[in-house]
Amino acid sequence: MDFKVTILGSSAASPARGRNQTSQVVTAGNSCYLVDCGEAAQIQMKRYKIKLSKIDHVFISHLHGDHYLGLMGLISTLHLARRDRQLTIFGPKGLDEIITVQLKYSHLKLNYPLRFVAVSYDGKTLLHEDKYVKVYSFPLKHRIPCTGYSFEEKERPRNLIKSKLQETKLPIEAIRALRNGQDYWDDQMKVWYRVNDYAYPPAPLRKYAFCSDTLFDEDLVPYISESTLLYHEATFMHIDQRRAVETCHSTAVEAATIAKLSGAKQLLLGHYSSRYADLNLLLEEAKAVFYPSLLSEEGNSYWIE
Amino acid sequence: MDFKVTILGSSAASPARGRNQTSQVVTAGNSCYLVDCGEAAQIQMKRYKIKLSKIDHVFISHLHGDHYLGLMGLISTLHLARRDRQLTIFGPKGLDEIITVQLKYSHLKLNYPLRFVAVSYDGKTLLHEDKYVKVYSFPLKHRIPCTGYSFEEKERPRNLIKSKLQETKLPIEAIRALRNGQDYWDDQMKVWYRVNDYAYPPAPLRKYAFCSDTLFDEDLVPYISESTLLYHEATFMHIDQRRAVETCHSTAVEAATIAKLSGAKQLLLGHYSSRYADLNLLLEEAKAVFYPSLLSEEGNSYWIE
Repeated sequence: MDFKVTILGSSAASPARGRNQTSQVVTAGNSCYLVDCGEAAQIQMKRYKIKLSKIDHVFISHLHGDHYLGLMGLISTLHLARRDRQLTIFGPKGLDEIITVQLKYSHLKLNYPLRFVAVSYDGKTLLHEDKYVKVYSFPLKHRIPCTGYSFEEKERPRNLIKSKLQETKLPIEAIRALRNGQDYWDDQMKVWYRVNDYAYPPAPLRKYAFCSDTLFDEDLVPYISESTLLYHEATFMHIDQRRAVETCHSTAVEAATIAKLSGAKQLLLGHYSSRYADLNLLLEEAKAVFYPSLLSEEGNSYWIE
Repeated sequence: MDFKVTILGSSAASPARGRNQTSQVVTAGNSCYLVDCGEAAQIQMKRYKIKLSKIDHVFISHLHGDHYLGLMGLISTLHLARRDRQLTIFGPKGLDEIITVQLKYSHLKLNYPLRFVAVSYDGKTLLHEDKYVKVYSFPLKHRIPCTGYSFEEKERPRNLIKSKLQETKLPIEAIRALRNGQDYWDDQMKVWYRVNDYAYPPAPLRKYAFCSDTLFDEDLVPYISESTLLYHEATFMHIDQRRAVETCHSTAVEAATIAKLSGAKQLLLGHYSSRYADLNLLLEEAKAVFYPSLLSEEGNSYWIE
């Protein structure tokens, strides 16, 4: 399964220094998930040749404008492109009202169904699953209700060892069980086929966790533990930590600390304050705490592997 | 007085082919007026080095997203930039509700006063004036309530003829009257000072008219008559006129016809459908009817003179 995240925006609050507001596309198998949708997200998608029509599910973290203001434009463009498939939007209660009032005044009757699902703030909640991944929400600590999202790979069929299969003629039920990771007892032949003899060990299950806007919060750790790739906002440098606390944001050091505590494999930084021209200062700070840290850059894709 | 319009967006409906949604900045003297505010207008302003803080008045033509979706982002960025001066928004009833609901859910208490003025659809209405211009709204014919705007230069003090002033010692009251375009009777000296002897003829008063989205409509002519520069949407080529009628838009030929009928000096085309890659086809069509036609191009300024 292809599993990656493409960054559409990396700026905090306002677009500045050529950086756009938070928005990302998570690709998992055949599905593309839009995660937050700052102003101009649809323009960024076109710039980076991501088909708008591939998005069936949108996940909005909270109702600060820099995380959702691109949504109405996207909804309208999908209508103009004669979409007929349902679009599902997960997000805070209130987002439905914001959309509805705008559809009302524009007299826009969408030619596709729009389904809105309000997220809960009560621990980790399964929102959606398909063949490849499960998507969960979990609460973040911000000035207004806010959730992160995690995309967690589901167990895949085990790859069987070809040479072993050539040695033994296995019944079809045995092959099915082994691919599903189970041993198989052949009642006729009175033989145990042990999965670990016939199948390669399973690849570790991958996980992408997205923490859009949050105060440094160790309570997050259980929700995002063992992420293959953890995106965590790093609005400020640590010298500006006071400002981070005032605004319910994190510093690069704090993002790195959460990555370390939660056992992440890699950390992706973002949501940079416009006060920083040189983002390498944030990166260096993070690396000092958690070496496998990366700067998210717009237009770049980061593989979750 | 500097009098020009800078184009931030020239696309109809959706951003496409690198073109953004409708938005313009009209500069008149020391004032900058934002006219429509499609998605990413604030990003375009930054790209073209137009200071957001200079905008005190915004004029929104109608509540189709491509004409107002950039407004919430702009409002929020001005707040973050610690604006304290009032921002006045003229636009359709309903826009206030759209703004209010979004401020409510983002828990945003603006640190500057936001004043909303609902426009009327009953003929030409004076909305605003300063030292240099008067701004009027007038109704357009579109699928939802929609207004155009005109920016009309006010009479300026006449320039006096220096050599004439050197010949005659004029009383201060005479100078004031002559500069205001009036003759002056000197009661002591029993002399008439005739304005046309002492002052250069007044420069013709300039006018910019903006017709965002409209069906071809001869009823517009009285509102926009004798414009120095007329902006008129030209969504379609004339071969697609049927589509123009269906969607309440105009063709380039129709825009040019209105320019001709209304005695415009120059015509500026815009709001191009994404179906056209080569906009020169629209321009040629318009020029065949009204030669002084121009294509609006993003980042370009067009002088009203």
